[in-house]
Amino acid sequence: MSLINSPTLFQSKIVNSIFGKNVKIVEPSNIYGTTIGEDCFIGPFVEIQKETKIGNNCKIQSHSFICEFVEIGNNCFISHGVMFINDLFSEGKPAGGDKTKWKSTKIGNNVSIGTNATILPVNICDNVVIGAGSVVTKSIHEPGFYVGNPAKKLNK
Amino acid sequence: MSLINSPTLFQSKIVNSIFGKNVKIVEPSNIYGTTIGEDCFIGPFVEIQKETKIGNNCKIQSHSFICEFVEIGNNCFISHGVMFINDLFSEGKPAGGDKTKWKSTKIGNNVSIGTNATILPVNICDNVVIGAGSVVTKSIHEPGFYVGNPAKKLNK
Amino acid sequence: MSLINSPTLFQSKIVNSIFGKNVKIVEPSNIYGTTIGEDCFIGPFVEIQKETKIGNNCKIQSHSFICEFVEIGNNCFISHGVMFINDLFSEGKPAGGDKTKWKSTKIGNNVSIGTNATILPVNICDNVVIGAGSVVTKSIHEPGFYVGNPAKKLNK
Repeated sequence: MSLINSPTLFQSKIVNSIFGKNVKIVEPSNIYGTTIGEDCFIGPFVEIQKETKIGNNCKIQSHSFICEFVEIGNNCFISHGVMFINDLFSEGKPAGGDKTKWKSTKIGNNVSIGTNATILPVNICDNVVIGAGSVVTKSIHEPGFYVGNPAKKLNK
Repeated sequence: MSLINSPTLFQSKIVNSIFGKNVKIVEPSNIYGTTIGEDCFIGPFVEIQKETKIGNNCKIQSHSFICEFVEIGNNCFISHGVMFINDLFSEGKPAGGDKTKWKSTKIGNNVSIGTNATILPVNICDNVVIGAGSVVTKSIHEPGFYVGNPAKKLNK
Repeated sequence: MSLINSPTLFQSKIVNSIFGKNVKIVEPSNIYGTTIGEDCFIGPFVEIQKETKIGNNCKIQSHSFICEFVEIGNNCFISHGVMFINDLFSEGKPAGGDKTKWKSTKIGNNVSIGTNATILPVNICDNVVIGAGSVVTKSIHEPGFYVGNPAKKLNK
């Protein structure tokens, strides 16, 4: 291993994306190859990868990460530090470039995901709230408030 | 929805804030409308919103997020990725612009909050340590070490 | 406390580090005093502190934080928002500048750490997968899949 090398540097940027009217973005953010609807806000220190789609009237807060194969509906609130996943390491290691092993996530409308929550590749129906710090490991088919690691429905 | 639009871009910045002597900040950070005491350090990729107050001799580490209505005492250590919350989604959705529904957080003196912890709107008394990865859902009135999701006092 | 002061600003940067061939870094990232092997990728909004070492063929994803005294082997995947810790607040407060109280972390080869996981100062052997959102509080000596807070081995 030669130790005298310069790394190749890339810059966070907003490229190759399609935006609806009235979208606001706080830089630095790294957003590429996505489609984002109208009246959305995206905070600073956010990464949104390609092959993603976000509906209208959504807020994507600071420090969040939206990976490939995530689709989010309308009127959704993705709070600070929320992160999505598409690779379950199902063979005990990252799938790497083999995207046939990646899983997709579909979030319905009127879904609010709390701060620092982690979302494995699942489907979440309309009108769901995910509590802060939760880890969502299974699909959610019923409206309600879900919390914990793994996230479970709160009965109240 | 017209798809041919340019988003409005904002830049992370340090504005409208009052600082004590000897405050060090690593950019990029997005800090606005806050009051910060003397001898504080703020790491990179931090967002501190308005209507917040931080005492003297505090460290706010990288990737942390301090939301509106958070007050932090003196000699506090807010570790990496710590995030505060002011909206409990108590009606099943974000309170949005209705700040009468937002809750405040008050952190005492000599409080240390561990990496990746999530702090719901609570009061935390002096001399408390919150373990890494914890989710604090209730106010803490007794000094000690609290860990887990939800955070509970560690007896040792 | 005088309130009319300007903070001292520093910029996130890549300095004082040794890189193998073919390392790619997305800025802004704050990387200083580290040694990184060949064929590594480092995403945006990453902080890597000094006195760290990362092997060959590793991915360090966005929003992750690698603190002093962490050593990572070859072929490791450190996912988004993963954070390491070197100070256990063992005396009820940060060790501050007293690094004799800091603990080290050693990660083996072929280790994959899931999104938003928090890693206390431990040793992790080769061929381990840590699930998303986990908090690793103890050393891991056996290959396998570990999840939860605190992380436990998954039997399946």
